[in-house]
Amino acid sequence: MSIPKTQKAIIFETNGGPLQYKDIPVPTPKANEILINVKYSGVCHTDLHAWKGDWPLDTKLPLVGGHEGAGVVVALGENVKGWEIGDLAGIKWLNGSCMSCEYCQKANESNCASADLSGYTHDGSFQQFATADAIQAARIPKGTDLAQVSPILCAGITVYKALKTANLSAGEWVAISGAGGGLGSLAVQYATAMGYRVLAIDGGDEKGAFVKSLGAEVFVDFTKSKDIVKDIVAATNGGPHGVINVSVSEAAVSQSVQYVRSCGTVVLVGLPAGAKVIAPVFDSVVKSISIKGSYVGNRADTAEAIDFFSRGLIKCPIKIVGLSELASIYELMEQGKILGRYVVDTSK
Amino acid sequence: MSIPKTQKAIIFETNGGPLQYKDIPVPTPKANEILINVKYSGVCHTDLHAWKGDWPLDTKLPLVGGHEGAGVVVALGENVKGWEIGDLAGIKWLNGSCMSCEYCQKANESNCASADLSGYTHDGSFQQFATADAIQAARIPKGTDLAQVSPILCAGITVYKALKTANLSAGEWVAISGAGGGLGSLAVQYATAMGYRVLAIDGGDEKGAFVKSLGAEVFVDFTKSKDIVKDIVAATNGGPHGVINVSVSEAAVSQSVQYVRSCGTVVLVGLPAGAKVIAPVFDSVVKSISIKGSYVGNRADTAEAIDFFSRGLIKCPIKIVGLSELASIYELMEQGKILGRYVVDTSK
Amino acid sequence: MSIPKTQKAIIFETNGGPLQYKDIPVPTPKANEILINVKYSGVCHTDLHAWKGDWPLDTKLPLVGGHEGAGVVVALGENVKGWEIGDLAGIKWLNGSCMSCEYCQKANESNCASADLSGYTHDGSFQQFATADAIQAARIPKGTDLAQVSPILCAGITVYKALKTANLSAGEWVAISGAGGGLGSLAVQYATAMGYRVLAIDGGDEKGAFVKSLGAEVFVDFTKSKDIVKDIVAATNGGPHGVINVSVSEAAVSQSVQYVRSCGTVVLVGLPAGAKVIAPVFDSVVKSISIKGSYVGNRADTAEAIDFFSRGLIKCPIKIVGLSELASIYELMEQGKILGRYVVDTSK
Amino acid sequence: MSIPKTQKAIIFETNGGPLQYKDIPVPTPKANEILINVKYSGVCHTDLHAWKGDWPLDTKLPLVGGHEGAGVVVALGENVKGWEIGDLAGIKWLNGSCMSCEYCQKANESNCASADLSGYTHDGSFQQFATADAIQAARIPKGTDLAQVSPILCAGITVYKALKTANLSAGEWVAISGAGGGLGSLAVQYATAMGYRVLAIDGGDEKGAFVKSLGAEVFVDFTKSKDIVKDIVAATNGGPHGVINVSVSEAAVSQSVQYVRSCGTVVLVGLPAGAKVIAPVFDSVVKSISIKGSYVGNRADTAEAIDFFSRGLIKCPIKIVGLSELASIYELMEQGKILGRYVVDTSK
Repeated sequence: MSIPKTQKAIIFETNGGPLQYKDIPVPTPKANEILINVKYSGVCHTDLHAWKGDWPLDTKLPLVGGHEGAGVVVALGENVKGWEIGDLAGIKWLNGSCMSCEYCQKANESNCASADLSGYTHDGSFQQFATADAIQAARIPKGTDLAQVSPILCAGITVYKALKTANLSAGEWVAISGAGGGLGSLAVQYATAMGYRVLAIDGGDEKGAFVKSLGAEVFVDFTKSKDIVKDIVAATNGGPHGVINVSVSEAAVSQSVQYVRSCGTVVLVGLPAGAKVIAPVFDSVVKSISIKGSYVGNRADTAEAIDFFSRGLIKCPIKIVGLSELASIYELMEQGKILGRYVVDTSK
Repeated sequence: MSIPKTQKAIIFETNGGPLQYKDIPVPTPKANEILINVKYSGVCHTDLHAWKGDWPLDTKLPLVGGHEGAGVVVALGENVKGWEIGDLAGIKWLNGSCMSCEYCQKANESNCASADLSGYTHDGSFQQFATADAIQAARIPKGTDLAQVSPILCAGITVYKALKTANLSAGEWVAISGAGGGLGSLAVQYATAMGYRVLAIDGGDEKGAFVKSLGAEVFVDFTKSKDIVKDIVAATNGGPHGVINVSVSEAAVSQSVQYVRSCGTVVLVGLPAGAKVIAPVFDSVVKSISIKGSYVGNRADTAEAIDFFSRGLIKCPIKIVGLSELASIYELMEQGKILGRYVVDTSK
Repeated sequence: MSIPKTQKAIIFETNGGPLQYKDIPVPTPKANEILINVKYSGVCHTDLHAWKGDWPLDTKLPLVGGHEGAGVVVALGENVKGWEIGDLAGIKWLNGSCMSCEYCQKANESNCASADLSGYTHDGSFQQFATADAIQAARIPKGTDLAQVSPILCAGITVYKALKTANLSAGEWVAISGAGGGLGSLAVQYATAMGYRVLAIDGGDEKGAFVKSLGAEVFVDFTKSKDIVKDIVAATNGGPHGVINVSVSEAAVSQSVQYVRSCGTVVLVGLPAGAKVIAPVFDSVVKSISIKGSYVGNRADTAEAIDFFSRGLIKCPIKIVGLSELASIYELMEQGKILGRYVVDTSK
Repeated sequence: MSIPKTQKAIIFETNGGPLQYKDIPVPTPKANEILINVKYSGVCHTDLHAWKGDWPLDTKLPLVGGHEGAGVVVALGENVKGWEIGDLAGIKWLNGSCMSCEYCQKANESNCASADLSGYTHDGSFQQFATADAIQAARIPKGTDLAQVSPILCAGITVYKALKTANLSAGEWVAISGAGGGLGSLAVQYATAMGYRVLAIDGGDEKGAFVKSLGAEVFVDFTKSKDIVKDIVAATNGGPHGVINVSVSEAAVSQSVQYVRSCGTVVLVGLPAGAKVIAPVFDSVVKSISIKGSYVGNRADTAEAIDFFSRGLIKCPIKIVGLSELASIYELMEQGKILGRYVVDTSK
């Protein structure tokens, strides 16, 4: 494939400024980078935060967002090993890290202080050609449907990592709060594939039917339950061993501290700006519970999350629209009107 | 030894009612119990809570408090195995548990819903003769100084368990908040014996000299530090890997969430009535930290905590007074005037 | 139910001596025991060893064998808590332990030096009424098919424990050597339920079809493979992460050390008299593998193994014959002619 | 510093061929490498194996051996980050790995199939200027004595990793077989610093006094013990929880399987050509022991091992000789006459 000089991208100059769909130069990979012809990219709430700039961490500007890109390797930096032109590769939130600090040394590279973030501090996947660190870029098996796999690259990895953080054994109960949403529906499927028993929490019969079709054993409808803590404890014979708070509302987290089983783990995974965990010390101590923050996965988590997908155990209902329509997706997000996951086709 | 019919004890009829020093009957051990001639008993803040009844858990009434008793086995229930008359035995917070529930099955018997608590739901060590469950009673090596070992039976086990809950490796940093107090000074010594590097937090030069004499490598004086978070992060080259919040104040816990190293663990161990943990979700997630409640130790923790003491690695400065003076100790406790650990001599 | 004075049992006076089907007294439960009206009992290779006395551990004599008994509680010792007449209960290999030693303290009661073994040092389940320690006896949910569940009580727990010992994550490969046999076929099902990918090793097309029907993803036929190590490594893209050596032959164990993935775990679970593990030090070190002995499960493993069965995830093809025919089953066992699991009906 | 064109080195053309001390070109660092002016290098048994070529893994030829080199960074490859000219750096056994395979992803880079080995597949530290992968090279704090630290870079890391592999808790017993030798004496010190109780095994009063001076609590003299298994079990009240077989003789490993505590771990760490582990299956299963191969440490292990040294907790008695005398050290090694660790000064 011959690589063009320019390409289509969505770019913004200032946080909250216009999302311009226009021609920009194709970037050149550094010695340690690969160049990926991005075919599809998922759209994540984090992209909205990056555009708005409402997190306590500055973005690069001007910025091309996006961190769920799936495509084909079209060029290799001079020191790159282990990749070949034509390989399928994924762009994920963690674009690169120092590989030398104590966190990188222990494979906690997501916690590296020099972490480089796709679509945040490094131009991301809302363009046709993106560079990616060769060590961190996700390896996608030949033959994979690139549109389908794209949400796995952030949403999938993130919930998979959260489930690992809950440190459960097969046969134990995990409650997933917000189970019918984009992250939640992936969490239900990963949890089922990992041998856990899933109690799904969401609102409405449609969501209930949906999460049960994905493997949830019990559905608790917060629009109908009169005492959600009591109902969850009863349904799981003592409370779930783990809780994944996909959509961290303060109220949901506080409830989860109440209904989690003694010695169990409450996992925080979303990143609402400004939210706090509030838990009573007495109960936390007497029940010996853990409250753990789970960030994004490392390279191993990435490979494993993709592997579950490749084995056909994870389905992600997506809507594909053109990259040029990204602004309208952000609008829907801000209005809370997103159902399922949007994926943009960079060719449109 | 012939066992008398009556004995001296401190007993109260109602929570907050008079602490009566008087003669009461010597209890008879059940089939699964041993009878211990208590020689000394430590006095713990929990005893004060039990007397006042200000925890969300009812006490037995009338009640003989105390759960740090050390003495000699003088009688055995008919089904007791593995104990002999004359053995040294300890009374600790967890007097007994069902041994059959999922928590007991996994050696988390402190979390048993049927846990029986010495000096709370079972008459404790503020008497000369107390019954104790033969399986849970602590085994104390022959030749041990019974006054010295008594505070180990609750304070020692509790901080040792908290340190295990922090799940550190030798060579890692642990911050101990309230390091100069009764629990804290034990925590410093256990942490040192476990190969951790100790940063001790407390106020005043005297406390500083004291914690350093116990093994602390760094002392941070909260009365002098202008930015305690910054100072702790600097002294530990990135923040301690674990934090033991011995005296859980909400402010101290909130600070510890800030200064703990990424991927580190904040342990809650005290039980202040009504206190809350408050932590920002964003930081907790991005730093991937854990906040864990640590309750009291199980049988293995007990044996290990005593073993460190028996090896001479743990010293506990105590003041010995007569059992009859217990009320005055509670008064000092309420006034926050206790320094070190009081131990009562049941013969006086 | 009124409890009779005598009952039918299979008893032998000397190791290898006659297996007598005759009337013996119904035992009386001790204070800590329950009396179980055994309905069905699985027959395990260990029962054959107990009868023959060819293990380096003496049996009680005369002895009633059997340690996979399922029945109904008909009487309670005076100190028993948590059981009621009419509850379903299981007799398993570990009848009781001291509950006080360091192994019992850490829930490794199978390793207790005072372990009391059903059908070995304590009269077992080849009788209509057997006593069992109330703490260790297995709890079986109401409504369970007692014939079907009986092999879970030893075979099921044992392979489940072995799988836990392999310490795998969901999505990792486990090889099961001897997958088509009694233990192996249970191991395939437990492994599948735990989210592992199963490579089954056995001989013949029939076994291949059988193990695949149970969930195995790959079948390696040792009667057809020209290089079993190479084939297993190829099929698992680098070797399985864990290996369960159900039928420990020295050759099979040596092979498993070769084909296991680097950093992987080889589990030994069978107890062939006199066999040895032989592994090259160089490979073991450079591949950083673990070789672990897995004995029988503890109370938590028991509850979990039964729970998987109760959820319908584990099927065990059994043949039911009368207790009076036990001797003929031993004969088939010695001839290696057993397919599947025999269960005896104590009423016949 | 100006970098010369040529330098002194010990090089051999064929395995077992002449060890030539001569001028060779100074190598040029690749983009991902640093150039280190090696000041001192420890001499390890592995260097002897590399020269002789008696391991089942081919060496590079011609080869400059050595993998315990300590020196100063004098040049940086163009993509190197996080290093500066003048930093102190160490050359260790693992020079580099792919950073992309499943082992590298999980920080098990020592198990990478593409591992590049200093003094084996990559020219090592027996020269004045050596290249090293920037990610794997050890970081040595300013002010460190480079001669003293050099043996830490292989021997120290290796025993530290072995101790971590034993997975012990502070206060547990570890037996170190061959405790008075080069690796063993380091193991005793690391174990002590990690809070373990050390039982040292070696021969002779002098060794006994030596290991006790390093922190061993008990010394078992194999030249005097009539029943070493019995003596070790008695001294540790049931057997050590872990065993580090520094010098893996088949007999020593077999003994260690016998004396290790139930649920304990036997670690294999040496690499004798052709040796085998032989363990009885019955005992391994009933005692539920683990036998684990421990290879070399990863980057985190390296940093931690050096940190213990920097804190003054590890002393390594060394003899410094000129690099030109390397052949004579190999002779002593072959004759088993080495006591302590030889370090070569590359300037002589």
